[in-house]
Amino acid sequence: MSEMNAQTGDRKTSPLGEAIVGRINALATISQDPGNLTRIFLTSEHRAAAELIMGWMREAGMNAHLDAIGNVCGRYEGERPRLPCLMLGSHYDTVRDAGKWDGPLGLITAISCVGDLNRRGRRLPFAIEVAGFADEEGVRFASTLLGSRAIAGTFKQSVLATRDSTGKSMREALIEFGLDPDHIGAAARIRGELLAYIELHIEQGPVLEAENLPIGVVTAIAGATRLAARLTGMAGHAGTVPMALRRDALTGAAECISKIEELCRADDAGLVGTVGYIDAAPGATNVIPGEAHFTMDIRAPTDDHRKRAVGEIVRQIEAIAKRRTLELQVEVTHENRTVPCAPWLKEQVAAAVAAEGYPVFELPSGAGHDGMAMVDIADVAMLFVRCRGGISHHPDEHVDMADADAGARVLLRLIENFRPQEAGG
Amino acid sequence: MSEMNAQTGDRKTSPLGEAIVGRINALATISQDPGNLTRIFLTSEHRAAAELIMGWMREAGMNAHLDAIGNVCGRYEGERPRLPCLMLGSHYDTVRDAGKWDGPLGLITAISCVGDLNRRGRRLPFAIEVAGFADEEGVRFASTLLGSRAIAGTFKQSVLATRDSTGKSMREALIEFGLDPDHIGAAARIRGELLAYIELHIEQGPVLEAENLPIGVVTAIAGATRLAARLTGMAGHAGTVPMALRRDALTGAAECISKIEELCRADDAGLVGTVGYIDAAPGATNVIPGEAHFTMDIRAPTDDHRKRAVGEIVRQIEAIAKRRTLELQVEVTHENRTVPCAPWLKEQVAAAVAAEGYPVFELPSGAGHDGMAMVDIADVAMLFVRCRGGISHHPDEHVDMADADAGARVLLRLIENFRPQEAGG
Repeated sequence: MSEMNAQTGDRKTSPLGEAIVGRINALATISQDPGNLTRIFLTSEHRAAAELIMGWMREAGMNAHLDAIGNVCGRYEGERPRLPCLMLGSHYDTVRDAGKWDGPLGLITAISCVGDLNRRGRRLPFAIEVAGFADEEGVRFASTLLGSRAIAGTFKQSVLATRDSTGKSMREALIEFGLDPDHIGAAARIRGELLAYIELHIEQGPVLEAENLPIGVVTAIAGATRLAARLTGMAGHAGTVPMALRRDALTGAAECISKIEELCRADDAGLVGTVGYIDAAPGATNVIPGEAHFTMDIRAPTDDHRKRAVGEIVRQIEAIAKRRTLELQVEVTHENRTVPCAPWLKEQVAAAVAAEGYPVFELPSGAGHDGMAMVDIADVAMLFVRCRGGISHHPDEHVDMADADAGARVLLRLIENFRPQEAGG
Repeated sequence: MSEMNAQTGDRKTSPLGEAIVGRINALATISQDPGNLTRIFLTSEHRAAAELIMGWMREAGMNAHLDAIGNVCGRYEGERPRLPCLMLGSHYDTVRDAGKWDGPLGLITAISCVGDLNRRGRRLPFAIEVAGFADEEGVRFASTLLGSRAIAGTFKQSVLATRDSTGKSMREALIEFGLDPDHIGAAARIRGELLAYIELHIEQGPVLEAENLPIGVVTAIAGATRLAARLTGMAGHAGTVPMALRRDALTGAAECISKIEELCRADDAGLVGTVGYIDAAPGATNVIPGEAHFTMDIRAPTDDHRKRAVGEIVRQIEAIAKRRTLELQVEVTHENRTVPCAPWLKEQVAAAVAAEGYPVFELPSGAGHDGMAMVDIADVAMLFVRCRGGISHHPDEHVDMADADAGARVLLRLIENFRPQEAGG
């Protein structure tokens, strides 16, 4: 599918890619370090970025304000005031030494689409709101999705007591920033105010590139289960213990890692399993490891699928440990539910993709997104834009301008054709 | 084989086990830390231990002196002065937080055997020398076998410039200890002075325990090849990269570890392979490892066998890396030749074991020993004494008194029946 095939006549009204990339670059200059991109929650860079984004929102014909957690919120009224809204958005905080597209692409594209409607004087039978979430990555306080949780009304007050690496609490940081931690509840929206929540985001993976497609339709934000395993055998001298008398914790761990890979590879429905961390103790070249520790991160497009897989993996590594007379301890360290994209919404995303001339290609989101919080007050859909080499959370993160433009055209068509569930779903 | 079967009549002249264990315990009190056993080269504990051991040597009818590297050297003359000697020995330095048997058992047993001959006024047609090596473990200067290399004349002058963790050079430490680093050459012996070198040592492995035998005849001190491997793939998000698009360095390393274990297990001639160290980078739970590092330690009873095995292992992990499109770098970080025990000497060790009523059981030494240096000036043999659970280099290292006694009886018989190669080999 080449870009040329995608020209369906409204290219003149969608020269959005160039403007979007310009704003991506402008926003990327707001960093705590001139050499790389790092923009953290409740810092002066947070404030500068918020001001820039609210300026763009107003330029696009929206009202804009900063809410009680530091989200930027823009509203473009519909055919009449106070209509329920279609909410679009993404986050504008970053990881440390980040790429410039993760988050900002969805937020800036949404504003650009509204700007396009506004230039044409187009009002729709619903309002459009654009949310720029203040903290999705959770870099500062080790607690993610803070912005979207505040809007979804699921922000936990206990989180205010958590401290950053300098010892400052979130409550103190909010007050310094000029926000009132006791009014975060005021940021919460209620279900009836939102017709849906739709987010455009870079894929952060290599699938669209491998498929040679600029756009993908997200089926679900995959849940994740993280586990930590410890295998205990018997340390010994690398030279004096014959193979048959060994209880080597690391060869046991190696067999477990191979088994996890084998089980996930054999799955044809999106299961992925990763061992990201391992160590062997005592860790000397000439000592048989008596202990090995490793982590597991298991994800699948549905909770059932993931839970079945986790169960199977644990059973298999228990069997490996037993056969090798190793002790095994496994604990679940983290668990996120899967958030499926609503079928009625996904259908409209797919229709917009097809109308722009692209094959409809569905894929799960393996990474977490603000939709995981927003689903508590609205049905959720996402569309992915191809990124180069699947690279994200890295300065090399890159989106081609043509793909940014494709994403904007699809999102604009999706907005213009949007029918709430009551009317069309 | 019970101890009772081993009583062949000379128990009354060999109540050696009790005396040996007493001296093991006395020597173990000389430690830089009262809570655990650590006795390091060229320290005041080294000096105190040397004085104690030289006292025991003199008590056994030997001349004793400290040589230019800090070895204790005792000589028991034969039927007439200046005869060539049968040299016995082991080391009296320790690792940190050591067991008390590794080294001292061989040294103290040799002194006790000489003491027994002396009590009986027995002189042999050769002299007996007992060497207590000052540094076998190499804890302080990261260079092993210093004592035996000085006696073998293979001590490298360049080692004098190496520094301990406080920055002190070996040259400075020798001078502080009262030794002259420029006279280490004076410690060297020449081939004609030694008829053989025989060392008794704890096994430091679990084989004799598994065989239910107190004594083993060593076939060779196995050489070792140590290698370091680095696998490089592509880091990625644990959620967004499908299994089929991954180049996971750690799953590649796991397959290599399993392959090494499989190859060594399939070998029925004493090959052992150990991966003692591993890490995966970046090492986060939710990131696919882009790089993995691991070490390999490969040992076998002959150099040919070990070299064939190393070649096969490297070929196999190269094939794994290629199939997984991972880059592989492997380098040899350390290599020790195998030192075979001389057949004519091993025969005499076996005869002494049999004469004491034990089955003759042969095994290689997987650990390194001073014989690796001594072989440059003499044929070498070793006998192993069973230790509990194969545990060594640990405070739990233990030898039963009955086994210490069995070792002493075998060594004493070996000495009394010893025939030099010219006469009997």
